[in-house]
Amino acid sequence: MPTINTIGFIGLGVMGNAMAGHLLAAGYRLCVYNRTREKAQNLVDAGAFWCPSPAELAPHCDLIITIVGYPADVEQVYFGDAGLIANARPGTILVDATTSRPDLAARIHAAAAARGIPALDAPVSGGDLGAKNATLTIMVGGDEAAFLEAKPVFDRMGKMAILQGGPGAGQHTKMANQISIAGCLMGAIEATTYAAAAGLDPRKVLLSIGPGSAGSWQLNNMVPRMLDGNFAPGFYAKHFLKDLRIALDAARAMKANLPLLELAERLFAKMSAEGMGDLGTQALYKLYESGLV
Amino acid sequence: MPTINTIGFIGLGVMGNAMAGHLLAAGYRLCVYNRTREKAQNLVDAGAFWCPSPAELAPHCDLIITIVGYPADVEQVYFGDAGLIANARPGTILVDATTSRPDLAARIHAAAAARGIPALDAPVSGGDLGAKNATLTIMVGGDEAAFLEAKPVFDRMGKMAILQGGPGAGQHTKMANQISIAGCLMGAIEATTYAAAAGLDPRKVLLSIGPGSAGSWQLNNMVPRMLDGNFAPGFYAKHFLKDLRIALDAARAMKANLPLLELAERLFAKMSAEGMGDLGTQALYKLYESGLV
Repeated sequence: MPTINTIGFIGLGVMGNAMAGHLLAAGYRLCVYNRTREKAQNLVDAGAFWCPSPAELAPHCDLIITIVGYPADVEQVYFGDAGLIANARPGTILVDATTSRPDLAARIHAAAAARGIPALDAPVSGGDLGAKNATLTIMVGGDEAAFLEAKPVFDRMGKMAILQGGPGAGQHTKMANQISIAGCLMGAIEATTYAAAAGLDPRKVLLSIGPGSAGSWQLNNMVPRMLDGNFAPGFYAKHFLKDLRIALDAARAMKANLPLLELAERLFAKMSAEGMGDLGTQALYKLYESGLV
Repeated sequence: MPTINTIGFIGLGVMGNAMAGHLLAAGYRLCVYNRTREKAQNLVDAGAFWCPSPAELAPHCDLIITIVGYPADVEQVYFGDAGLIANARPGTILVDATTSRPDLAARIHAAAAARGIPALDAPVSGGDLGAKNATLTIMVGGDEAAFLEAKPVFDRMGKMAILQGGPGAGQHTKMANQISIAGCLMGAIEATTYAAAAGLDPRKVLLSIGPGSAGSWQLNNMVPRMLDGNFAPGFYAKHFLKDLRIALDAARAMKANLPLLELAERLFAKMSAEGMGDLGTQALYKLYESGLV
């Protein structure tokens, strides 16, 4: 198994910056690129090499991790003459940690394989805190050999990296994750809306319903924020909408009828239309409160 | 505060029988009634007094607990010449632990108060295991004085009895509980349906998504049962449908628009129509599998 010495990191938002920092701290040589250069400064100060484009970053690296915004951004970074696939050395492992389309992950895998480059899709869960504390869950799709090579790198960023299957399986797993979140979050918000309408104290209700079979991470963590009027993004509503649409597209392509997912997409689209896309997912409660549901 | 020596117990199904057993074991004198007498036999053998009707049970008791099937059963036990309200002594505390209509709880409270009888609504969560192990959560509505009198009795049957508000508040809290369950359960089932359609191993997916922000009691407990083909009732689908309809009626009366609750009611009604009402709630997965959603 080849040794991974130099890692490229593209996409240095809140998540990527923290993840890249762990790799630098672990002693890897780190090459970084980000659309907005300033977001790389802390890493460069700590010893990372700035590369002015993905094409210039690619040849230096044994493994390259990308975590960017939308599937269109992923396409741009991977494909074309200036993309990673055209510019990486054969054998370099490409890892897309963006939550993106499963079919795009499969396309990247195929195009990269044609050049002797293994590619993994590896979206994460655990949020900014998980990235900061290196406790992310990493859901991986691709070939086992590449997964095993990349595993020590994953283990620096997260506490649980699992190979879920072939190309796209990481993205599909993340979609299952988002679907479960959608159900728990809407259930929590409707339970709270109901309780408030009934004249109950929703905080006291949470004491009764939070610990038992009605309990969920969303109920126990998001409801207190909502009730405090804290709608700051732990996770942006607009990004969740993006994820729900990816899941819905994939479900339709697989002929899976998922009415809860459809409902979630409708409500988050409505939130976005009302200008709340830059709030956290828990701000869906405001849509219920305003009667716009 | 008057001492509670004799407790009446009406409704000796799986839940009621276990709850009554704890009271007998705690040293209370216990009077029992059930539509099917055989279900009382174990308690009578252990020292409980059999009463042939609610009317004959009522005068002996300082506190009476009912846990029957549907709101219509509750009405029959409480109202009319043969009902508890007409036959209990003033001061006897009436406790309805059935999951029932909040407006019925308010009617019982008012009719009982007119005869000097305090009434509490006190539905429970925690299921058959919670009843057996005396770890139920008890959600109470009514007057504080009656709650405080009844509290030592509640504490023999559950680990958390909370007064949530006035008459009906216990039922409203239980409805909030059921709404959150509906969201978590449907989210878990759609996540699993999606994962299976994508060719993933849903058990492995659960390892990735169960512990984090997608996690819920329903996801982590019901999905393994579904995947094992275990659709035995921990909680009957038909009873959950009853609860969802109570919640939906109440929500409509309060002008609360709850689309997830509406969806849940539609799917569980469909399940019942397909003859799956006597299975557990997790059998909703079969509806998804069969494409009947």
